[in-house]
Amino acid sequence: MKLCSNIARSAAAVLFLLFAGSAIAGERPADIPEGMGILPVNVPVPTDNPMSAAKVELGKKLYFDPALSKSGQFSCNSCHNLGTWGVDNQATSIGHRWQRGGRNAPTVLNSGFWSKQFWDGRAPLLEDQAKGPPLNPVEMALGSEADAVARLQMAGYNAEFDAVFDKGGISFDNMAKAIAAFERTLNTPDAAFDLYLQGKGKISAAAKRGMLKVADVGCTSCHAGALFSNNKFVAFQYGSDTGLKSVTGKADDDHVFRVQSWRNVAMTAPYFHDGKTATLAEAVDVMARVQLDTVLSKAEVADIVAFLETLTGVLPSITYPQLPRPAGQTLEWHE
Amino acid sequence: MKLCSNIARSAAAVLFLLFAGSAIAGERPADIPEGMGILPVNVPVPTDNPMSAAKVELGKKLYFDPALSKSGQFSCNSCHNLGTWGVDNQATSIGHRWQRGGRNAPTVLNSGFWSKQFWDGRAPLLEDQAKGPPLNPVEMALGSEADAVARLQMAGYNAEFDAVFDKGGISFDNMAKAIAAFERTLNTPDAAFDLYLQGKGKISAAAKRGMLKVADVGCTSCHAGALFSNNKFVAFQYGSDTGLKSVTGKADDDHVFRVQSWRNVAMTAPYFHDGKTATLAEAVDVMARVQLDTVLSKAEVADIVAFLETLTGVLPSITYPQLPRPAGQTLEWHE
Repeated sequence: MKLCSNIARSAAAVLFLLFAGSAIAGERPADIPEGMGILPVNVPVPTDNPMSAAKVELGKKLYFDPALSKSGQFSCNSCHNLGTWGVDNQATSIGHRWQRGGRNAPTVLNSGFWSKQFWDGRAPLLEDQAKGPPLNPVEMALGSEADAVARLQMAGYNAEFDAVFDKGGISFDNMAKAIAAFERTLNTPDAAFDLYLQGKGKISAAAKRGMLKVADVGCTSCHAGALFSNNKFVAFQYGSDTGLKSVTGKADDDHVFRVQSWRNVAMTAPYFHDGKTATLAEAVDVMARVQLDTVLSKAEVADIVAFLETLTGVLPSITYPQLPRPAGQTLEWHE
Repeated sequence: MKLCSNIARSAAAVLFLLFAGSAIAGERPADIPEGMGILPVNVPVPTDNPMSAAKVELGKKLYFDPALSKSGQFSCNSCHNLGTWGVDNQATSIGHRWQRGGRNAPTVLNSGFWSKQFWDGRAPLLEDQAKGPPLNPVEMALGSEADAVARLQMAGYNAEFDAVFDKGGISFDNMAKAIAAFERTLNTPDAAFDLYLQGKGKISAAAKRGMLKVADVGCTSCHAGALFSNNKFVAFQYGSDTGLKSVTGKADDDHVFRVQSWRNVAMTAPYFHDGKTATLAEAVDVMARVQLDTVLSKAEVADIVAFLETLTGVLPSITYPQLPRPAGQTLEWHE
């Protein structure tokens, strides 16, 4: 269990600090701007969906299972590929019958730390988010919650759902709960910056300049704290997508999008909600202009990119799941 | 390494037999028809592509990497999914721009044991087969070998190819060699039948009847030996696909297809080269009629299916690979 290993790591870190005393190793370097911190170890867990190893294992199977798409072609992992930092590196993802969605697929990594899900925050929890793509007609395109449950039954998930959710068995809600539980294990500790912050590693001079620059320029007023996101939703006057307004219809929500975390941002190109910005350097330049009315020099952009690259963490090790399937017959896919 | 563990298992089995003496455990049950045997442990390896742990690891990454498709959507694993017994359970697979291929995707499992690859045997080795799908316009749709190499370079595979193929570095040939090396580890020992054959387990009475029936009726004249395939290519007058003739143009090759192995056949529905046969029971019925001019009773079909289900082995455990990608930029995909 990820949580357990995180707790173990946390305990080890405390012990390390106790015995390190006043030595330099283990101390936070003095130049790190206030607020910046190591990735938290404890993911918030809703009280009605406690973590368990069996639930995480079930969630992993569901996450990788193309049976949750009408055609049998797409799984969660198709667009949020855990082999490529929880994204597909597409501007907008390919879905059912080669349709494309309207927004860039954000990374699933560390998503348990976000206050709300989706670019516009329309889903409060991972449990809510996980119900979206299977039924989205341009994504996985199942017709209804009942269709999803029928697929899971046909595939042979009954016993495993019964074991994990002892009373409920297979349901769309429990499918989402299991996926969310798995996603809460997909965190990326031990980025170069995290090691540097703990006195256990170094970052380059360029990265240090970038670290100071993002605080100086004001990026960290939103990209704040250990997550490098204040977990809020702010206006970003860029592109034609009206963001949260497209959900609520409120003028105040015009072009409002979540403040994306910088964690692993170097590995999740292309950028922004429309995915039209191909490089991280371009994204930094655009953000400074649009959000801070600041024109950065090329050298400043390069320094900031060097800093952002230190926020790439370590992916959890994942054993590829063996999915349940009935013997001697196929599932029924549809165009 | 799979081969090493297979060798270890093989040695353990020999020791077990030595010490088991004349006890029943460890002895081959007398009722098993001649020729039937446990899955071999040693996969044939071409002399110009020796196995190594690093090569297998590189091949695994390539196998799971959608960068080998024009759109960035498809990897080898999309159609030969290792979570679902090396197949996608589609009649014919979905490829580039939602096109479908003409033949059912056969399982990659145990494919290192086949004498030739593809339904029509047009590829002598896995190394040859692995070069097909990336360049097939209805599958992964890359334009040329050079396009594939360019993708691998952009993704950042250079160092890993150099480490594995010390002189050659990145090339289309070496890509295929690495994928083939990985595929030679994808074998499925320890099916219920294999354990039964070694006196380590039981199979049902129905499965035993089926085991005798397939020998009695003559199925095993082609589905022969431990692989339950004689590794030959025979005429199968079923459907409009002319098989090997479509490659060679020779009348003798009309409707010639490979004798598929029965290993894991219960998990690789739908059946035959066109994937139009949904259930294993129907496939057994059709084969008996077309190839043996025999009409099986429903009870006989059920017994044979019960036997075939005992040939489902144990999948190798696979750690999902982390794929190389450049920092701060995306690869260039194409429609």
